[in-house]
Amino acid sequence: MEIQVMKNILGENDKIADENIKLFAEKKVFVLNLMGSPGAGKTSLLEKTIAKLKDKIKIAVIEGDLFTDKDAARVEKYGVEVVQINTVGGCHLDAAMVAKVAAKLDLDALDLLIVENVGNLVCPAEFRVGEDERAVVLSITEGDDKPLKYPLIFKESAVALLNKIDLLKFCNFDLESAKSDITALNPTVKIIECSCTQEKGLDEWRDYLYKVVKEKTEA
Amino acid sequence: MEIQVMKNILGENDKIADENIKLFAEKKVFVLNLMGSPGAGKTSLLEKTIAKLKDKIKIAVIEGDLFTDKDAARVEKYGVEVVQINTVGGCHLDAAMVAKVAAKLDLDALDLLIVENVGNLVCPAEFRVGEDERAVVLSITEGDDKPLKYPLIFKESAVALLNKIDLLKFCNFDLESAKSDITALNPTVKIIECSCTQEKGLDEWRDYLYKVVKEKTEA
Repeated sequence: MEIQVMKNILGENDKIADENIKLFAEKKVFVLNLMGSPGAGKTSLLEKTIAKLKDKIKIAVIEGDLFTDKDAARVEKYGVEVVQINTVGGCHLDAAMVAKVAAKLDLDALDLLIVENVGNLVCPAEFRVGEDERAVVLSITEGDDKPLKYPLIFKESAVALLNKIDLLKFCNFDLESAKSDITALNPTVKIIECSCTQEKGLDEWRDYLYKVVKEKTEA
Repeated sequence: MEIQVMKNILGENDKIADENIKLFAEKKVFVLNLMGSPGAGKTSLLEKTIAKLKDKIKIAVIEGDLFTDKDAARVEKYGVEVVQINTVGGCHLDAAMVAKVAAKLDLDALDLLIVENVGNLVCPAEFRVGEDERAVVLSITEGDDKPLKYPLIFKESAVALLNKIDLLKFCNFDLESAKSDITALNPTVKIIECSCTQEKGLDEWRDYLYKVVKEKTEA
């Protein structure tokens, strides 16, 4: 029963995601679905991304959280439009939530819409929101076994960011093993080692993101 | 629609959880539902718990993972019975999964059954499995904002373990603020600061667990 219900929910979600994709194509807005565990560093990455890119491309952010607007408050300081979605206990964002918010944004004035999903390595990967690409942030403090234990999110992401790389020497994390597991799951994935606190690897990420955004907005 | 479906699923789950509670009461087995984000340190805590308690009380473990039996293999080395549940993408364990496994265990020979849930700070908290108590493991690398962002799991846990406390000096984590947020959500919660790699705070945890297990098995 539960499986059929889930299939119906996902089918309904896919329809709305397809409508979102159409809208974002018309408006030439690149949509990034940013995912990862609680505390992987999604919001820190967002701050670092926006700080350097906001004068080159026009950015807005959708912040997904169960409760609180803590992340929205952090991102808002960088002077971009931020809309908070509180799922009130819900474990992921879905296409309908994003559609509702997108209707209120001035999409004509945007190049990049970043959707920071709920902190969860499982459920967000099941629900397309109409994104162009997905990126997953894995903190190396979470352990090198995570890609094989949570494969879907790594399979479906264009970029896997191995964050908090500055803590590598204090953690029992086999970098080569993690990278090889991620590549086995997803041979075309771009893996970036980074640290938001130590400013490592961030240019590689920002350059990549800038390039894919420009490819869409200038197409 | 989705909300009604969720209510039905949770109602059905509660019925089975109540049957599990009855069974575990008859058999005088204490059941701990161990929860936390991916990489919070649940399995490391389990290893440290079993290593010291297995000669004093009889322990079995249910390992919940989407895929792989990596955690079961780690725990099995300590010479206790371990049963792996692979949810094949599912984001939490439910009461029916635990009932199915419990039927195969020799409950008369057990004092403590530890259920290590899927790594996820959201969904597992929604599904009772028939446990006596819940414990949540929060790695301090996840950030001090997590209790307010994921309140349910902290509200419903008897113990909150702040793990990887050895990394505190490398992280921007306000210990007092996190503890005060957890206590505000759950005034009776026991908060334990610990490090599984540095052997800190573990005796406090093991003594607590031993005490509550004995209270049930000797009742």
